Amino acid sequence: MSVCPEDRNIRQALNRDVHVLRLGHRPGRDRRITTHVALVARAFGARTFFLADVSDPTITRSISKVISRWGGSYFQIHDNVDPLSVIREFRGRGACIVHLTMYGLPITKVIDDISSRCREILVIVGAEKVERIFYEISDYNVAIGAQPHSEVSALAIFLDRLWKGIELELCFHDAKYYIIPSAKNKVVRKVE
Amino acid sequence: MSVCPEDRNIRQALNRDVHVLRLGHRPGRDRRITTHVALVARAFGARTFFLADVSDPTITRSISKVISRWGGSYFQIHDNVDPLSVIREFRGRGACIVHLTMYGLPITKVIDDISSRCREILVIVGAEKVERIFYEISDYNVAIGAQPHSEVSALAIFLDRLWKGIELELCFHDAKYYIIPSAKNKVVRKVE
Repeated sequence: MSVCPEDRNIRQALNRDVHVLRLGHRPGRDRRITTHVALVARAFGARTFFLADVSDPTITRSISKVISRWGGSYFQIHDNVDPLSVIREFRGRGACIVHLTMYGLPITKVIDDISSRCREILVIVGAEKVERIFYEISDYNVAIGAQPHSEVSALAIFLDRLWKGIELELCFHDAKYYIIPSAKNKVVRKVE
Repeated sequence: MSVCPEDRNIRQALNRDVHVLRLGHRPGRDRRITTHVALVARAFGARTFFLADVSDPTITRSISKVISRWGGSYFQIHDNVDPLSVIREFRGRGACIVHLTMYGLPITKVIDDISSRCREILVIVGAEKVERIFYEISDYNVAIGAQPHSEVSALAIFLDRLWKGIELELCFHDAKYYIIPSAKNKVVRKVE
């Protein structure tokens, strides 16, 4: 039995493919932040997580563990990718390149344009320093507020605005466990 | 000269006081995640960040540096607080206690109630394991989706829904630097 009622097949309602490319990951220092970026990508409906320039098996392992428990085996992780090659490949097949940065245009000004124009999106999230080329190569440099906060929150807000909140109902048909929302308790059920 | 036009005095538009209490911080391992939680608190309009049970001067230092450059000196950080004392103090003055957890009730179901009932809010965000008492003592256990992601993204989405996006226009009157939004560049101005 699937944990998802038929009317909660939200994966199909998220009517475009989104992929996330993480730049500037420093193994060790960034491990938990990058893991959280990947968890947001999965939980908020993206299909792929690319980690640029380095391998970090601890991240792949953490996400695989989450997937095996909570579902989402369609979600792919590729590490040690060349970021410019990934960007060119996505551009070549017509995807929009969206770079999240506090220096970009406010999300409220560009989200409607992105929603109507982009059938597929590669979202770039950087660490502290992002090279100029990524600003130039992106179709949209998008600011989630013009204040420093986090690539984790920036990605979450971007996807929440893109999908108008329906991603929060995302249900994974291949989950082994699922949660029954509760006012005061932790209620976890195993899929029969 | 202030960097904020008169009509962008969003701090006043954020018409209730929000404070964030971070549980379960492990210095070392959680340093960057907790720093990002505090950055989201500041950037999304909270007034106070409480760190439970431990001191971590690296976090206080990081946030102070951000404040001295980008403004927000009203934003207070208190570390090594006793979390239950903080909760009781806020409850005593009529604040709502909101605990963000994937096991709670969906935000879409409770946000209107929170918005209309709560003039002041203490938001609790935990790390991996949160003790049962915090579920019981909270007025609301709120889920930002029923999937694992991050306390950073959970806090951002909660505040974004609470304030319906106006927090992204937050402007700090005491900033030394501010950003001119740009489609392709990084444009930072020093306040004259």
